[in-house]
Amino acid sequence: MGKKIAGQPTIRRLPSYLKIIQQAHDEGQFFISGTIIAGELELEPIQVRKDLSITGIVGKPRIGYPTGELLKAIRRFLHWDITRRAAVVGAGHLGQAIIGNPEFARHGLDIRAAFDTDPRKIGTRVKGVEVLSMERLEEKTRELALELAVLTVPSAAAQETAEAVAAAGIRGIWNFTNVKLKLPDSVSVQQENLASGYAVLSVRMGYHRPRGRS
Amino acid sequence: MGKKIAGQPTIRRLPSYLKIIQQAHDEGQFFISGTIIAGELELEPIQVRKDLSITGIVGKPRIGYPTGELLKAIRRFLHWDITRRAAVVGAGHLGQAIIGNPEFARHGLDIRAAFDTDPRKIGTRVKGVEVLSMERLEEKTRELALELAVLTVPSAAAQETAEAVAAAGIRGIWNFTNVKLKLPDSVSVQQENLASGYAVLSVRMGYHRPRGRS
Repeated sequence: MGKKIAGQPTIRRLPSYLKIIQQAHDEGQFFISGTIIAGELELEPIQVRKDLSITGIVGKPRIGYPTGELLKAIRRFLHWDITRRAAVVGAGHLGQAIIGNPEFARHGLDIRAAFDTDPRKIGTRVKGVEVLSMERLEEKTRELALELAVLTVPSAAAQETAEAVAAAGIRGIWNFTNVKLKLPDSVSVQQENLASGYAVLSVRMGYHRPRGRS
Repeated sequence: MGKKIAGQPTIRRLPSYLKIIQQAHDEGQFFISGTIIAGELELEPIQVRKDLSITGIVGKPRIGYPTGELLKAIRRFLHWDITRRAAVVGAGHLGQAIIGNPEFARHGLDIRAAFDTDPRKIGTRVKGVEVLSMERLEEKTRELALELAVLTVPSAAAQETAEAVAAAGIRGIWNFTNVKLKLPDSVSVQQENLASGYAVLSVRMGYHRPRGRS
């Protein structure tokens, strides 16, 4: 289950660090302090230093981290310095939102095709990406050398579709359904659980009643 | 920044626990062991026991946790036992996907309206939810007693829109843009960062090249 040297919470924070460091770098700053990063993200400085230590880059006392080197090291750690050929499987609203999000492309996610079972969608294009029939998944996986699938089908179809994705030879699934997939260990699965974010917000908001209600 | 007694990683895991315990409960099980939950989620049993301890429910040795009580306690902890009236601000693909996701409604997220600036969208309905002009945000917030906004506008419009949301009296923002919002402390903001999940998947998948490339 992932690298032993870095916990999942650390990995999850790295993209936020990347964004802040990139901004500083773009503004011409050669160094950035862990305290500045911590302040921006409302984290403890000790946490930031611990997280960043996994990249192998060491901050200098009173100067901070070299922005250029640190950017490169985080990208290398996340494997965001390579391109991954991907397909969106399930071309509904969520799938289309992901195809249309320019951020993922910057991190190496190269969406080459979309798949759906809806005849009205098959043959159309979403931001230039062709929507193909599910029957062509195996053929296209080989032809386009796809290695990752963004799974955005309805939950009822999740397990069956994931099995087809795995059988086609795709070895990574970014799972946006709320189904815990049962697949061979050779397939890496990352389950996106949007309810987690809502849980955090809900706890923060507490039990206060909205205005106008008693 | 949230409850001091529970860290964000713990809160983020609670919805997954809830799902597994609900399933056991639906199957007629009165008790579930921490080890079973841990096995399902690929976590350490000690982690599960630590996380669940924040609900105040204590597991019995060799029997486990009482499923009914634990479900209630988790929901109470997450404030998922109350309804929050919400609006989706930005009725694009992502906004429509969220409106169409039945899971959030089960957790008390009651989406009463959507807002957009696109005249072609205004006046239409998404799964029964009316899309309104942004100009009506303040009036509708009062009328519908909205307390939460799901922010799904393009990043370029994020800060400005969030300020309008806050000015309208909404006190919680679930932020799906990649912009770190600057708002008064009275507004609770939860930033959803989909790149975090992609980072975890990317690290798991490693540097292996896809088939067909050298």
